[in-house]
Amino acid sequence: MGNTKSIVRPLSTVETKPIDGTRGARMAILIGPEQGAPHFVMRRFVLEPGGLIPEHAHEDLEHEQVVVRGELVLTLDGETRTVRAGDTVYMPPGSSHRYENRGSEEAEFICVIPLTEGYETRWLESLD
Amino acid sequence: MGNTKSIVRPLSTVETKPIDGTRGARMAILIGPEQGAPHFVMRRFVLEPGGLIPEHAHEDLEHEQVVVRGELVLTLDGETRTVRAGDTVYMPPGSSHRYENRGSEEAEFICVIPLTEGYETRWLESLD
Repeated sequence: MGNTKSIVRPLSTVETKPIDGTRGARMAILIGPEQGAPHFVMRRFVLEPGGLIPEHAHEDLEHEQVVVRGELVLTLDGETRTVRAGDTVYMPPGSSHRYENRGSEEAEFICVIPLTEGYETRWLESLD
Repeated sequence: MGNTKSIVRPLSTVETKPIDGTRGARMAILIGPEQGAPHFVMRRFVLEPGGLIPEHAHEDLEHEQVVVRGELVLTLDGETRTVRAGDTVYMPPGSSHRYENRGSEEAEFICVIPLTEGYETRWLESLD
């Protein structure tokens, strides 16, 4: 049944952790099964200046994202563009994406995914 | 099947619209069925200084929220607390919530809900 009362998580209590296979990228699960969420998971991503999440895809799950701080160079299905705080991105299942912070400030975005049993990433690029 | 390619929506292209039954509160759907999203809907809420979304509940749907700008006084299940940019809130189905901007700056939050056939709001408070 999950929780029946609301939960507040102050930013200061949430720790981001480095993401394997990336450079200078960290992630925190903000709301997920631990909070009782039944359907989707809200995550926070932070990319340092020079940070890179190499190109990859997830066959079975979509991303709904909003940039909240800084600027990111995204490559979406092979097309590169810059997004900034307030911009929103929808990535359908199977699409490919790559995130790079070419700026001098940290960049941050929120990414929501469906709650699924597994989470498979197909890497299309490596760091080296 | 929805879209198979990613979609970017720059902030400048997204219009927020006043929300009935509130004071000084506006909302925009950022990612939803129009973008091909199959499972959940990402919305953007802005409350002017003095803005109020009166207390209400939704029996059948949860909220996953993150504050991205400013400060809000939330009343969650009857308990009042202040949240600020970066703080996250999970509101399970049936829980009650009220949003007030007592500050001098606009406040903004992202709210994600499941994609459902209907969207029922039970108001527990009116503006007057």
